[in-house]
Amino acid sequence: MTTVDFTLACPIPIAQYPTVTLAHGGGGRLMHNLISKMFAPALDNPLLAQQHDGAVFELGEARLAFTTDSYVVHPLFFPGGSIGEMAVYGTVNDLAMCGARPLFLSLGLILEEGLPMETLWRVVQSIQHAAETSGVQIVTGDTKVVDQGKGDGVYINTAGVGVIEYNGVIDPKQVQPGDSIILSGDIGRHGIAIMAQREGLAFESDIASDAAPLAGPVLDLLEAGVGVRCLRDCTRGGLASALVEIASVSGQHVHIDEAAVPVREDVRGACEILGLDPLYVANEGRFIAFVDSCDTDRALALLRRHPVSADAVLIGQVTDAADGLVTMRSVIGANRIIDMLSGEQLPRIC
Amino acid sequence: MTTVDFTLACPIPIAQYPTVTLAHGGGGRLMHNLISKMFAPALDNPLLAQQHDGAVFELGEARLAFTTDSYVVHPLFFPGGSIGEMAVYGTVNDLAMCGARPLFLSLGLILEEGLPMETLWRVVQSIQHAAETSGVQIVTGDTKVVDQGKGDGVYINTAGVGVIEYNGVIDPKQVQPGDSIILSGDIGRHGIAIMAQREGLAFESDIASDAAPLAGPVLDLLEAGVGVRCLRDCTRGGLASALVEIASVSGQHVHIDEAAVPVREDVRGACEILGLDPLYVANEGRFIAFVDSCDTDRALALLRRHPVSADAVLIGQVTDAADGLVTMRSVIGANRIIDMLSGEQLPRIC
Repeated sequence: MTTVDFTLACPIPIAQYPTVTLAHGGGGRLMHNLISKMFAPALDNPLLAQQHDGAVFELGEARLAFTTDSYVVHPLFFPGGSIGEMAVYGTVNDLAMCGARPLFLSLGLILEEGLPMETLWRVVQSIQHAAETSGVQIVTGDTKVVDQGKGDGVYINTAGVGVIEYNGVIDPKQVQPGDSIILSGDIGRHGIAIMAQREGLAFESDIASDAAPLAGPVLDLLEAGVGVRCLRDCTRGGLASALVEIASVSGQHVHIDEAAVPVREDVRGACEILGLDPLYVANEGRFIAFVDSCDTDRALALLRRHPVSADAVLIGQVTDAADGLVTMRSVIGANRIIDMLSGEQLPRIC
Repeated sequence: MTTVDFTLACPIPIAQYPTVTLAHGGGGRLMHNLISKMFAPALDNPLLAQQHDGAVFELGEARLAFTTDSYVVHPLFFPGGSIGEMAVYGTVNDLAMCGARPLFLSLGLILEEGLPMETLWRVVQSIQHAAETSGVQIVTGDTKVVDQGKGDGVYINTAGVGVIEYNGVIDPKQVQPGDSIILSGDIGRHGIAIMAQREGLAFESDIASDAAPLAGPVLDLLEAGVGVRCLRDCTRGGLASALVEIASVSGQHVHIDEAAVPVREDVRGACEILGLDPLYVANEGRFIAFVDSCDTDRALALLRRHPVSADAVLIGQVTDAADGLVTMRSVIGANRIIDMLSGEQLPRIC
């Protein structure tokens, strides 16, 4: 074999970032730098350049979506879900965000030596349950075991293949001035559920993760012919990061109204105690849809038929400023710019 | 969401196997038990039941293969390759073993906090090099960072999608009495290269991994109309495990001739020093092809045109015993049964 040419200088300034930090996996600015400065130019190809939740391509007559995510959440089990359900729903949801009907998942397990066999069995049962709930099949897999102290129980990777039956194009670049921005429900529950479990915090009410498959409501929107421009689930980095990514890639100005964004009282209280901004807290069952404003009411009505998006609301719109920024009108009426986090809010949340 | 029913008893006897051990990831009997007793029944579906290197399905007019592997090899760089090249070639080869032309790969990185940025850059360059060499595109990806001490530098998962243009069926169940068994070259180099690097051993000559993409020679066989029944790369568990898997799934009796199996002298010497049997040592650029015996010479001639399979040889044949076993005629003329390893020969070899 020919050998690799290692003479190219590292595109990330080593003096400033000599090592990988937790923030490089946090969904904020450092992770985006790593992707945009190192991964994307090195691995350059048109599909990767789509900057979508997955790659969309045609094979024969079929239009397919293909996506992957690894799951390193700690702890493995938490109120409302587990790493197994997240690994299935997360990839199902990334396919749905491409407008695809999720069909087939791969499953890569990295187990730590010493993991109780019972725990592995619980993880496998959670995966099976989530696959059944989502209507997907786990069709291929791989198992690796690493030495004790070189893992953390279980890490899971899933990749997914789905078929796109919708004729339109769902892409940040389709976003247009005037588009409505719909959020599928209240935010912040997943991140708070994990933090509470991790830190042994007890809140007045139980806060459970919102982890759930989202393909049902998304496919309903598409089948009904709603003018969907772009979809994004609000996972790592929360609602704020999803909005910033879409504004940045589309070059459009996104404006939202803080008062319209649903946050449960107990989640808001927990965020205050923990010093977190709910806009940046991870969700596993929430998404935003940018839709043609003519279709706003119809989209809301369709989403509200599904339990998982029963509380869908209009939270803002795309203005004609075309500056790639996100602004939010606060509850007291002031406008502020919403940016990506530069650091790390919650490590290993997904 | 509905919740998971955790009342089912663990299908692996907990008293005997209370925890996951390194051998559960070693490609031998314990790993196969985990797959056949826990994963396969729980995640049951027809595609998973194919027991192939990947899943094969039709979407629209296209016949596709889909596969995944995680890579946890230690050390990250070794003579002849690195984790980055393995992560690409390994998945490319699994697709090739399904008879597919590899097209698109996903890339999931699990990075350990504190990984030198330069090391990550070398890994990314290796991945890019391997993708270019193999003619595939990395079209979607994900990056996670885990706390220091909860990983080991870099773990990589790749999944791959390929298209099957061949009209026949490549599957262990296609294997028939009289079929020829062809091995694409000498065995044992990858495992020994890793062990030498890991243990700081110096041998008389440099032993480099055979890591390489195998789609070229495989697609040549298929395009030439060679009667290929089944293909398998000889990775974890080596040549022996690949043969045992195929014999077991097909129910056919596989017989090979030890004297015909090429092992380099330096590799044989290293195996003796390390107490390893080359039949069980992992390779990353070798495969076996079960072909219609009428096509043996043509298959060998086609394979020998490619540098990666220039030393392809006939090592045995399928007899009519139909007992699902593998036997080997040793160099001194005795026949012995070849079985899967029950323990762990070389941990974290891939």
